Amino acid sequence: MLALGREVLALQPFSVLLGSELLVFTSALTEIRIPVRPDFLQQHGFVHGGVVSYAADNALTYAGGGALGFAVVTSEFKINYVRPAKGQWLIARASVIHSGKTQAVCRCDVFASDSGVEKLCAVAQGTIALLSQPSEPKI
Amino acid sequence: MLALGREVLALQPFSVLLGSELLVFTSALTEIRIPVRPDFLQQHGFVHGGVVSYAADNALTYAGGGALGFAVVTSEFKINYVRPAKGQWLIARASVIHSGKTQAVCRCDVFASDSGVEKLCAVAQGTIALLSQPSEPKI
Amino acid sequence: MLALGREVLALQPFSVLLGSELLVFTSALTEIRIPVRPDFLQQHGFVHGGVVSYAADNALTYAGGGALGFAVVTSEFKINYVRPAKGQWLIARASVIHSGKTQAVCRCDVFASDSGVEKLCAVAQGTIALLSQPSEPKI
Amino acid sequence: MLALGREVLALQPFSVLLGSELLVFTSALTEIRIPVRPDFLQQHGFVHGGVVSYAADNALTYAGGGALGFAVVTSEFKINYVRPAKGQWLIARASVIHSGKTQAVCRCDVFASDSGVEKLCAVAQGTIALLSQPSEPKI
Repeated sequence: MLALGREVLALQPFSVLLGSELLVFTSALTEIRIPVRPDFLQQHGFVHGGVVSYAADNALTYAGGGALGFAVVTSEFKINYVRPAKGQWLIARASVIHSGKTQAVCRCDVFASDSGVEKLCAVAQGTIALLSQPSEPKI
Repeated sequence: MLALGREVLALQPFSVLLGSELLVFTSALTEIRIPVRPDFLQQHGFVHGGVVSYAADNALTYAGGGALGFAVVTSEFKINYVRPAKGQWLIARASVIHSGKTQAVCRCDVFASDSGVEKLCAVAQGTIALLSQPSEPKI
Repeated sequence: MLALGREVLALQPFSVLLGSELLVFTSALTEIRIPVRPDFLQQHGFVHGGVVSYAADNALTYAGGGALGFAVVTSEFKINYVRPAKGQWLIARASVIHSGKTQAVCRCDVFASDSGVEKLCAVAQGTIALLSQPSEPKI
Repeated sequence: MLALGREVLALQPFSVLLGSELLVFTSALTEIRIPVRPDFLQQHGFVHGGVVSYAADNALTYAGGGALGFAVVTSEFKINYVRPAKGQWLIARASVIHSGKTQAVCRCDVFASDSGVEKLCAVAQGTIALLSQPSEPKI
């Protein structure tokens, strides 16, 4: 499952651009890690919210994809930023809360790891849907 | 206001990485445009949701910043993806719905422009908060 | 369409309990009005957030139902409270932003009307889905 | 803390109307229980989404209030309905995920208890804010 998940990630040019890695991908947990680079920051030196929301979005999609199969898209999600993200790594951990036949509701916690200490920086919740047509979004 | 907004955007390395441009920045409307590059896509050839959510997040923050002043952060937002984003440009337009002293609630529509035709691809809603401490997130 | 919508509303015991009225129900706009009663308040004398979120939820569902047909449910929604709700009426106005075959994304504004003056008190955004099985939620 | 919480709940006419009970109120967990009555249903015989969202909203507010003090309001929340709510009781359990000086981000799970068996029917996430002025919303 992890090997297949990594293949899919390698097919996402934007995930490659950000250096996103899939560390864990089981039915219980998805963990995505992003090495923080200087060009991921905003003007105050913290990781830009757009990188944090990318991490949450992608981890949610994988979590849902693990339950529904790979042909899924994120329908929607919501994110609360709770702390500025500072450190060397961004780590997003997502799990399925409930899965039906065509969609899964998932939650995600995003942590910033600074010198080995993880701090929660955002929490997200969203819906992952099975692709109904070939002409839809992602994962 | 536009000139100042562009200066701030130029100070965000992640916005520079994505080539994000601030086209309109008034108290009524914020418009951010991103030129779609091949490395912004996902595996089906559409713009990655992470780029779409970055665009929404940043436009919401600017809209709120226009009402509250520049020392603001996105507290939270929610996004619904309604159509795969395909085209040469991603355009996010955001407005303030209600602004208090310390926070503003804003909405944003994200369009993909393909050969000059714009199609709505996502809608977002979120809260922008005045920074209470110097040590907090972004814009 | 309005007559049918009112029949459905009359079949919802909770909507009857709250005295909810469907004023407008077209493909462009759904308007639901609730007469504020003393037992709808919270301890500071404002309309309880639960009544406001009921109004938003129901108006969103109707808006989506107008696009998708009556066998729909609210999958999810998000609400921002922007002002305490005070007055004689609560008015929720919802519209479809985008409708596919199986789900519609809608937005809603909730106003409190006090002595004839309407003030925005909440904004919401959510997903309405076509019922896949007979054994699912509401409207 | 539980006794004080119950006093506040008894001051909310809408919570009294719905028969809402505060079962647990500690810094770790808030549990609110609502006895399902026939007039809380929708037309398919399930508990109306408005009652479910009231339960989530109120539990989130209490959870945040436990961290921030009682003068709080729900700024915003998001709810995903995952299963029709059917049974004799609705039980909302909420916890604080992160609390700052002026706001707390909380999560809530809502269960329907049918003949003693609990099933998850909704999950929510939201922001509870300290009241800045005496003239604002609830709890």
